[in-house]
Amino acid sequence: MSTWVPVPEGSGFGVNNLPYGVFAQRGELPRVGVAIGEHVLDLAELAASGLLADRRWFAAGTLNAFMAAGPTVWHPTRDRIITLLTDMSYRDEVEPALSPMRDVELHMPFAVSDYVDFYSSREHATNLGRILRPGTEPLLPNWSHLPVGYHGRAGTVVPSGTPIVRPSGQRRGDSGPVFGPTVKLDIEAEVGFVIGQPSALARRVPTSGFRDHVFGFVLVNDWSARDIQAWEYQPLGPFLSKSFATSIAPWVVPVAALDAAHVSPPEQDPRPLPYLRCDEPWGLDLTLEVELNGHVVSRPPFAGMYWTPPQQLAHATANGAALRTGDLMASGTVSGPQREQRGSLIELTWNGNEPLELPDGTRRGFLEDGDTVRITATAPGPEETPIGFGDVIGTVYPSQS
Amino acid sequence: MSTWVPVPEGSGFGVNNLPYGVFAQRGELPRVGVAIGEHVLDLAELAASGLLADRRWFAAGTLNAFMAAGPTVWHPTRDRIITLLTDMSYRDEVEPALSPMRDVELHMPFAVSDYVDFYSSREHATNLGRILRPGTEPLLPNWSHLPVGYHGRAGTVVPSGTPIVRPSGQRRGDSGPVFGPTVKLDIEAEVGFVIGQPSALARRVPTSGFRDHVFGFVLVNDWSARDIQAWEYQPLGPFLSKSFATSIAPWVVPVAALDAAHVSPPEQDPRPLPYLRCDEPWGLDLTLEVELNGHVVSRPPFAGMYWTPPQQLAHATANGAALRTGDLMASGTVSGPQREQRGSLIELTWNGNEPLELPDGTRRGFLEDGDTVRITATAPGPEETPIGFGDVIGTVYPSQS
Repeated sequence: MSTWVPVPEGSGFGVNNLPYGVFAQRGELPRVGVAIGEHVLDLAELAASGLLADRRWFAAGTLNAFMAAGPTVWHPTRDRIITLLTDMSYRDEVEPALSPMRDVELHMPFAVSDYVDFYSSREHATNLGRILRPGTEPLLPNWSHLPVGYHGRAGTVVPSGTPIVRPSGQRRGDSGPVFGPTVKLDIEAEVGFVIGQPSALARRVPTSGFRDHVFGFVLVNDWSARDIQAWEYQPLGPFLSKSFATSIAPWVVPVAALDAAHVSPPEQDPRPLPYLRCDEPWGLDLTLEVELNGHVVSRPPFAGMYWTPPQQLAHATANGAALRTGDLMASGTVSGPQREQRGSLIELTWNGNEPLELPDGTRRGFLEDGDTVRITATAPGPEETPIGFGDVIGTVYPSQS
Repeated sequence: MSTWVPVPEGSGFGVNNLPYGVFAQRGELPRVGVAIGEHVLDLAELAASGLLADRRWFAAGTLNAFMAAGPTVWHPTRDRIITLLTDMSYRDEVEPALSPMRDVELHMPFAVSDYVDFYSSREHATNLGRILRPGTEPLLPNWSHLPVGYHGRAGTVVPSGTPIVRPSGQRRGDSGPVFGPTVKLDIEAEVGFVIGQPSALARRVPTSGFRDHVFGFVLVNDWSARDIQAWEYQPLGPFLSKSFATSIAPWVVPVAALDAAHVSPPEQDPRPLPYLRCDEPWGLDLTLEVELNGHVVSRPPFAGMYWTPPQQLAHATANGAALRTGDLMASGTVSGPQREQRGSLIELTWNGNEPLELPDGTRRGFLEDGDTVRITATAPGPEETPIGFGDVIGTVYPSQS
């Protein structure tokens, strides 16, 4: 499949991807678009000129209305956009709806309803257990039986580029707790999925229902204050150590764009209970890249995640909890077995004890004011064209306390 | 102050209270009202006839727009409603806007943005520690230094009366975990506060800012599955054991209605860090009542809560987390020092080992299908008229698995 839009070699935004986002021209209202090469295709404009159905889905400041419409709308829309971008006979009509990406503002792609964060990398959970609970079994007994997860703060999920102000909080001091700016500001490189079609209260969604409800995947950086976390997290879990900001990328990659990226996930031993079993191979062969101040410090492999997205979804609804359009469920930190595959600084520097050395000669245990973190990801696509996830970027600003 | 509306002796809905809710006449759209005696006053109708300002706040299906307007709108609105209900000269104009409460449907009063649940009763936290972590210090070291809390699921906060379907989940079995309907379905009697005026990201709200941001208080029943909780909650906190349903009462009691209910909270030792200190006495002298199948099983005293609402708010924003209109922050289970003051069955029956005996001769460790729980609360009001919180009711339905 080839498109008449120029797509640079190695772009993750070929016509096989077509991630959805929300963008605005200077001074105009935000609307829905898809990324193609170095352009954004304005779906609201295509709908206004009759080339796409139902304008209300696209002349909107979030993806939520379109996401809520469900797979019977998503699939024909995607097919139609592919036709418009590959059939030369549409070129003259469609070309005016393309804008160079550098000329538009990218917004928050969807309004987050509930935000759930899992903990599905065995390597990450093991590393954190070793660091936070030294001298005990690092993986707790429940971990290999269910995808451990918790609710985070939906209201502080922010779009890529939002300044990350160093948060304050309580942490352990030499003679009792102290309050002040965190000294262990960290990242967590994650991949999230977004609910499109909602589900009813008291009805479970089985692993086989994943494609009916999930609209797509998005890169996540779940900023974390490790000193606040270590002091606050027992017995009810992380709270203020996470709730100051969670950044997401501007592009939501459709589930269908990842068809060529499926691989077998790690074998699960013990065998999961029936409600967590899944016939399809739902490992996803994404490679993440974490850059700190422009220097790649890690390449976490998503294919090695122990618990898969359909298992996370089936677990999150096993009690009958309803899904709403805009629910974001993130994987938890993606870490592989090698040191250079760890998706957080607390793992990369072993709680600050083994600092990273950057090319400029400076060293980092945790983040310093002014640091910029950028996370990207790529998956294999059909016909050897990669599927890109855009990037999620954040720069650390000094505490305002 | 006396109103021309008939208010029965002992009603918690006198003219000193005026809680806000959302109601609908049969077949009509929901709108905002206040409770007065056994009637609901239709604020949308008053606004339409020019007796109240800005109709958009009241001809709405949630309180959110009105709550977002902030205290400079809430206070004059409340004063005006009091005038309309006490000044006889308005009677003829206002009376048509009154409907008997039994003739209307009460709806979810506000759309919940984020839901935070605290753990602020020392007695409850101590009881739970003893039951869930026997043989260890029941209160963890952080508990007396900060109001421990966590995020719950906003999308499953439901209005009073919503059926509570017994949730399924994983729990410990004799030879590994099993999946099935919970056998330890419980309640948590709580009092929540609701954010009206939002706050900006990266700005803290001090304890003294409580009245600027908080619209009112609402009764909460945080349904809990104790067997699921015990197995899942480490290390990231409760998840599916709580996320199937949290019920709230239909009425939000304005902060101003509780002016006569303030008392000194328990002395805090160790002294809290400066950001948690509070000059005003923010203990609130509410007495809750928990009824199981019509029989009062507990009277939890809210005045004894160790951490107060302004301390909870200051803590939740200490890291710069933004507040949104509709954020619900609940107290955690309200339990007093006496057995008959405990706000959950796990405490009342000591994890099912000391069942309650009901008047019909049946016994309860935890809830059975068909059981109905009703929680009410009363606070002292001015001029010896009580301030009522309405009730939050739920009936347990069998598992659908």
